[in-house]
Amino acid sequence: MVRIRMENAKTWKTCISAIAALIDEAAFKFTPEGMRMKAIDPSHVALVDFELPADAFVEYEVRKETVLGIDLAEMDKVMSRAKSEDEFVLELSEGENRLILTFRGKSTRRFSLPLIDIRETELPEPKLEFTASAQVSAGAIQDALKDAGLVGDSVKFEISSEEFKMSAEGDSGSVEMKLSKGDEGLKKLDVRQQARAMYNINYLEDMSKAASSDDIVTVNLGTDLPIQLNFPMGKKGRLSFLLAPRIEAR
Amino acid sequence: MVRIRMENAKTWKTCISAIAALIDEAAFKFTPEGMRMKAIDPSHVALVDFELPADAFVEYEVRKETVLGIDLAEMDKVMSRAKSEDEFVLELSEGENRLILTFRGKSTRRFSLPLIDIRETELPEPKLEFTASAQVSAGAIQDALKDAGLVGDSVKFEISSEEFKMSAEGDSGSVEMKLSKGDEGLKKLDVRQQARAMYNINYLEDMSKAASSDDIVTVNLGTDLPIQLNFPMGKKGRLSFLLAPRIEAR
Amino acid sequence: MVRIRMENAKTWKTCISAIAALIDEAAFKFTPEGMRMKAIDPSHVALVDFELPADAFVEYEVRKETVLGIDLAEMDKVMSRAKSEDEFVLELSEGENRLILTFRGKSTRRFSLPLIDIRETELPEPKLEFTASAQVSAGAIQDALKDAGLVGDSVKFEISSEEFKMSAEGDSGSVEMKLSKGDEGLKKLDVRQQARAMYNINYLEDMSKAASSDDIVTVNLGTDLPIQLNFPMGKKGRLSFLLAPRIEAR
Repeated sequence: MVRIRMENAKTWKTCISAIAALIDEAAFKFTPEGMRMKAIDPSHVALVDFELPADAFVEYEVRKETVLGIDLAEMDKVMSRAKSEDEFVLELSEGENRLILTFRGKSTRRFSLPLIDIRETELPEPKLEFTASAQVSAGAIQDALKDAGLVGDSVKFEISSEEFKMSAEGDSGSVEMKLSKGDEGLKKLDVRQQARAMYNINYLEDMSKAASSDDIVTVNLGTDLPIQLNFPMGKKGRLSFLLAPRIEAR
Repeated sequence: MVRIRMENAKTWKTCISAIAALIDEAAFKFTPEGMRMKAIDPSHVALVDFELPADAFVEYEVRKETVLGIDLAEMDKVMSRAKSEDEFVLELSEGENRLILTFRGKSTRRFSLPLIDIRETELPEPKLEFTASAQVSAGAIQDALKDAGLVGDSVKFEISSEEFKMSAEGDSGSVEMKLSKGDEGLKKLDVRQQARAMYNINYLEDMSKAASSDDIVTVNLGTDLPIQLNFPMGKKGRLSFLLAPRIEAR
Repeated sequence: MVRIRMENAKTWKTCISAIAALIDEAAFKFTPEGMRMKAIDPSHVALVDFELPADAFVEYEVRKETVLGIDLAEMDKVMSRAKSEDEFVLELSEGENRLILTFRGKSTRRFSLPLIDIRETELPEPKLEFTASAQVSAGAIQDALKDAGLVGDSVKFEISSEEFKMSAEGDSGSVEMKLSKGDEGLKKLDVRQQARAMYNINYLEDMSKAASSDDIVTVNLGTDLPIQLNFPMGKKGRLSFLLAPRIEAR
């Protein structure tokens, strides 16, 4: 039996929207301790790790471990119909072959979605030694990604002990966004060794949909390593993305 | 002579927008008592009945019965240029072969439209014995229609003594919206015999453009009968739609 | 050396957006006294004259006359990324072959654009004897242009001692906008001899992007002469358009 209730639909709606942009289907594992979903995108460039502990929910009834195969595009369509302030309930149907999503606001709306078969695949668990970390306003990252999109399809991240920088270059010009210590959009800078690497803009734009512009994102970086973006979900949950670097022509 | 003036353009703009989505041209009959327009859509599935009595207008000058043939797409284009708060005047040109629409706001804007010849056709006057009626917030209906559109092109309406329900089913899942007695979006429920029938979503979406989400719509229903949607227009007017049911496969 | 700083990016953003709709590239001339750009559109129908004196800027460092060839489409793309309240700096790169645009808000964003070669062309300096002039709210003009677009692709301007009028006619009807003395949208009317002429709507719509709807535009008119639209830019600057008339079939 799986039945979870959230005060509002906003968190689930936002996370599913970002994840569905990257991944078609995924296995959501519910245990008495909480929900976890890990998946890799079809081109094996991006890893998603989505986790909400039991006490992130108003109500959380899960007796035994249950894995639900979910078509993310279909779930995203349904979640897009939720109003952010609607109370949200997700539960297994009695026959256990369908998922029931209920939004309660001025009216009560119930959607049912078929579950899908998913072969559980062993996911890589990369051990990464990030050497620099920054807490940055999501809005600054979202703007810089759009800026970078003007001149190319890759963006370079650099974190030094003084600043957080995103930049891009192309035939039509170059673009650079900087946040220095003390700037409003830079909450924290934690640098063991300065780091830089280059990434695909489209993937990052999909990932950054998980945040409102005022949210704070943690960016973990190592030179030519994958980048990790951590979006806090409430006090207890987390949506985390890992994206492989592009080889930089020098 | 026909000359009518309304405090603002909003009512006329909204009604014409909804009607023009269904019907290409129509005969508007002006008598000293008021304006009435009845028309059927090209596929003979939907009937429109639009009525505004003389005292719904700030000024209403109609000496004798006059029937004006109007190209609704053209009138809709003109009305879409009105600002909702503009004062609105509609009148016959002196030569009587054109319609003059005037919007008065920060500037005065005058549009003239050619009248068209319309053969008056005898419209069916179906006598329908509705057995259930509900007063529902237009927003709840508009949301439920969009929800239903996720899974199919038909939506089932059901009114019982306890609740108002819209639902749809398709290969990708099912959808249901319920308003129970006491819910904010359900003002009144009047049931002689519970009723249900299925209708085309596109037609209903066009019709529901006649309302703002806070408006209250009266839904009249009988099992497998046409559905009637009544949108009050001010205290005295009314825009009413009748839509034939779809045969439901059981 | 060229380095200019504006309190916010709004003026430059709005002007470039309107100009780029008409013209692909232009030579911006910076002198110690101020900036000036004059250009003609590819079909030789519209002239642009954009002028900002040195004291329209917070900071203005130009030692000697410098002409910069700018790809307006590229600059417009960059300016569209500015937030209106961002501080805006434009400067020549040290190598002097690129333009650096910097937006300072919550983050600092730097864009670089290659300069382009522009052959300076002698522009016509038409001596026009306008006989009538009106100061009109930009919103009224913008609305009337959209109205006129419903029925055709030309609009007639008329200024008499009593009123400012824009009108259009087509097969599907006719349209007219009037501002009379005393109307909120008409600030001033200055008529030596009443004037009227007809112009292309698309060009005027592009030009009118230079204004917010509350701005006041000065319209200079002479019968069958080009029309001049003057948009004040702050207290000291000016963006001015000249558009050739269409021959009116009478």
